[in-house]
Amino acid sequence: MTSPLTGAHLLLRCAAALGVRACFANPGTTELALVRALEEAKEIRPVLGLFEGVCTGAADGYGRIAGLPALTLLHLGPGLANGLANLHNARRAHTPIINIVGDHATWHLPYDAPLTSDVRGLAGWASRRVIELHTREDIQSGIRAAIEASCGTPGAIATVIAPSDLMENEAAGPSPTVHEPMQRAAPAAVDARRLTRGAHALRAGPAILLLGGDALSERGQRAAARIAAATGARLMMESYPAVVPCGGGLPYLERLAYFPQDVIAQLGAATVVLAGALAPVSYFGYPGQPSQLVPDERLVQLSRPGEDGCLALESLVDALGSATDRPTTVVGRPAGGSGTAFTPVDIAEMLIAELPEGSIVSVEGSTCGGPYLQRAHRAKAHTVMTNTGGAIGQGIPCGLGAAIARPGSRVVCLQSDGSAQYTLQALWTLAREGLDVTVILAANHRYGILQTELRRSGADVHGSACARMTQLDSPRIDWVGLARGYGVRAERIESCEWFRRALQHSLHIPGPSLIECQLA
Amino acid sequence: MTSPLTGAHLLLRCAAALGVRACFANPGTTELALVRALEEAKEIRPVLGLFEGVCTGAADGYGRIAGLPALTLLHLGPGLANGLANLHNARRAHTPIINIVGDHATWHLPYDAPLTSDVRGLAGWASRRVIELHTREDIQSGIRAAIEASCGTPGAIATVIAPSDLMENEAAGPSPTVHEPMQRAAPAAVDARRLTRGAHALRAGPAILLLGGDALSERGQRAAARIAAATGARLMMESYPAVVPCGGGLPYLERLAYFPQDVIAQLGAATVVLAGALAPVSYFGYPGQPSQLVPDERLVQLSRPGEDGCLALESLVDALGSATDRPTTVVGRPAGGSGTAFTPVDIAEMLIAELPEGSIVSVEGSTCGGPYLQRAHRAKAHTVMTNTGGAIGQGIPCGLGAAIARPGSRVVCLQSDGSAQYTLQALWTLAREGLDVTVILAANHRYGILQTELRRSGADVHGSACARMTQLDSPRIDWVGLARGYGVRAERIESCEWFRRALQHSLHIPGPSLIECQLA
Repeated sequence: MTSPLTGAHLLLRCAAALGVRACFANPGTTELALVRALEEAKEIRPVLGLFEGVCTGAADGYGRIAGLPALTLLHLGPGLANGLANLHNARRAHTPIINIVGDHATWHLPYDAPLTSDVRGLAGWASRRVIELHTREDIQSGIRAAIEASCGTPGAIATVIAPSDLMENEAAGPSPTVHEPMQRAAPAAVDARRLTRGAHALRAGPAILLLGGDALSERGQRAAARIAAATGARLMMESYPAVVPCGGGLPYLERLAYFPQDVIAQLGAATVVLAGALAPVSYFGYPGQPSQLVPDERLVQLSRPGEDGCLALESLVDALGSATDRPTTVVGRPAGGSGTAFTPVDIAEMLIAELPEGSIVSVEGSTCGGPYLQRAHRAKAHTVMTNTGGAIGQGIPCGLGAAIARPGSRVVCLQSDGSAQYTLQALWTLAREGLDVTVILAANHRYGILQTELRRSGADVHGSACARMTQLDSPRIDWVGLARGYGVRAERIESCEWFRRALQHSLHIPGPSLIECQLA
Repeated sequence: MTSPLTGAHLLLRCAAALGVRACFANPGTTELALVRALEEAKEIRPVLGLFEGVCTGAADGYGRIAGLPALTLLHLGPGLANGLANLHNARRAHTPIINIVGDHATWHLPYDAPLTSDVRGLAGWASRRVIELHTREDIQSGIRAAIEASCGTPGAIATVIAPSDLMENEAAGPSPTVHEPMQRAAPAAVDARRLTRGAHALRAGPAILLLGGDALSERGQRAAARIAAATGARLMMESYPAVVPCGGGLPYLERLAYFPQDVIAQLGAATVVLAGALAPVSYFGYPGQPSQLVPDERLVQLSRPGEDGCLALESLVDALGSATDRPTTVVGRPAGGSGTAFTPVDIAEMLIAELPEGSIVSVEGSTCGGPYLQRAHRAKAHTVMTNTGGAIGQGIPCGLGAAIARPGSRVVCLQSDGSAQYTLQALWTLAREGLDVTVILAANHRYGILQTELRRSGADVHGSACARMTQLDSPRIDWVGLARGYGVRAERIESCEWFRRALQHSLHIPGPSLIECQLA
């Protein structure tokens, strides 16, 4: 290269040397030195998003599947602001992510140009660590610190603020020291007293073993299944897992319900042993319902997020006796749709029947997500991701990032229509990158959860304001038109048989497609 | 009404009594009490956006045209986060806006449910005032305080954090006291010394009178034109005015250029008298170029944003002698397109020829925005709004809000394609509300400004990373498909004559339409 080594080159070389392989970018003028440096950083795949929420959601999906952070590249305060909602979800998922946020040249900042804002204040909202680069020396140590912060256990978001002058200027001096590729930090061991308490609770029964975080890994699930076989404990999973392997003989994990009264009924009087999961809390506060859904005296925290829940479960297997792993169900082809109506259950059943082994399913929205997660254990071995933080617009970007992290795997986004609107620009990136992603869009043309909540509160969902705020059918959004507008193959489906054929086709041809499922 | 008066009812009644007439909403569960209360608050028009940036951008457009604040209704931290980018623009435009951000029930907050976040920290980013409601008594005073903060001079954003329990609970007690409808605070008078200094500089010459903020009002422009006639001062406008009346005999205002070297050349050695405008500052920091583009000794601040710039200019007219108002150009039908190529200049010329009197033009992006603003004085009397803060995705939402603020006026969004992607969901709200909005989309399928900047820095825009980060044509986005997907009439145009017919048709039939202009 004849061009000089700039701060931007140095930053990307450090990141590449540490093992960074993808950058989800929506750059502006202050990030152009980094764009130019991407020409040279061939190890890092640059992926353009048309909106920053696409980039941060993709980095979330990438980090969940790869286990290691991708970069995002965001333009100043407003660019970061647009990415925050999906960073909120990533924070809840403990996903490692490194945001690179460009800022004005340091000497230009005091002049309060139009795009100037308090970038640092925003960055602290979702990040474990915010790193401001000031000098050439900061670059290498800053990137290393960002990677360390994000690769802790649990994983986290680190945000690096990179002034444009530092990125543009020559960074004369030695090349980056050779690094060992980054690795996730080893989780903390669970102390013996908690193991004893856990074993005691499971032996005493009735007990529920509620899995979350790392305890939902294949290893964790297999250990949990043996514990269940030995003790009779019920196995459950947290409501919104970041990543959970399902199917292929893994045990059935009953999913924690959504509404507080349903959770209370579901859990009964059992003691709840938490492995990697947090104590069940109501999603929202409802009058007359508690926030914490299991009283302290019935909670036993075996392992917390960031601790070694798998090892804790395996230790319990040894302590409780070695009953054999007993999968609760077998993989099989379900009956499929009834042929008369076309329902979310039909979609879930057919997806389970058709899903190729090794697929990744990104679930957002309850319309099909609920029925699917009840049945996912009956499919071939695959991985499910859900919306961990409730900031909607996460499913398709997350699937996009997963597809970049694991080329060759089919990704299915099982997606509700209301939430898909927040980041629909992700469809274009699917097409541009030619990713093998099937978007199954459950189109009921309403904010279903809000109508459910309104009914629960006794409101008339057909009242003019209530209807105007929750019905999306006037005009009816044509998702096939939107998808094709972005270069994604698409069709609209209104029956079970038609859906099965469309799904089979979509799952086996390269590139993205969208199936708009017209639901009643 | 038999239903009890809740906190939400009280909040909306107070807002309505103070004169609030519109609410741009993207509610979630924690805002449903407010949605139910909208049933009763008939004075307030609820307008649903499919994404929060649509709502905040619409509130910006509404506030600019109405001069008074609309409400936004946003869901917790992530909903506010999605609205921040357009709030950044509104902050720069000094637009009055009142955000109502729902929060968890107060008693539920400590449990750190999935959607919990530091709402207050985010709210402070763009708001002049953040008001947390805690008790029934806070509601009335809080809304009043929010309106006062937003209606100051200059206008500003106030954000009210409304816990769901306070909104849901009965708010027994007296109804809101009858209020006087809100009014904008009177601007501060400019002190006599600055008037003297301004008069001196304009008399001494060579001088430029740079107008911004309130000095760009019709009154301000007419006074400025008389000053120019009396003194020979050049009239200019700031680069990105929030609202500027144009055409119909108003004077030609040369627009301040974008790149620093162009501004420096444009201003020469003249003294710059600032009326409502800030001292010219480079948009970004460029190596070898200054940030402040006019040295202090050549700057005279006649009036600052929030001061009475119109009165200051009128005082100068008296001081400088009463030359007659002399419009610099006449309204006339321009020649129009050459017929051979179809260029941004053609679009600007034809829009000027066809624009109905009293229209509002929302300009975002430089492709057509630059040529248009050079010529806007030749059109019939209309109002122009621009992107004040540089957070892109502002133009169509801002036009949407303007159309709600001034029913019966035609709104034209003169919009670049790259920036339109950030908030394209606004198209659906245009269709749903049946608004008379014409979107002229300049589709060059690239981030033109970034390619210009790359070329300036000597980079190869065809390098693989540079091209991938700035070219949007693979696949080419089909804006006609996207617009129709949202229920908006649309067509693609590739020649001048065709554009003129499409424009004429669009400007005179009710409801929204989009014209995708294929540019080279």
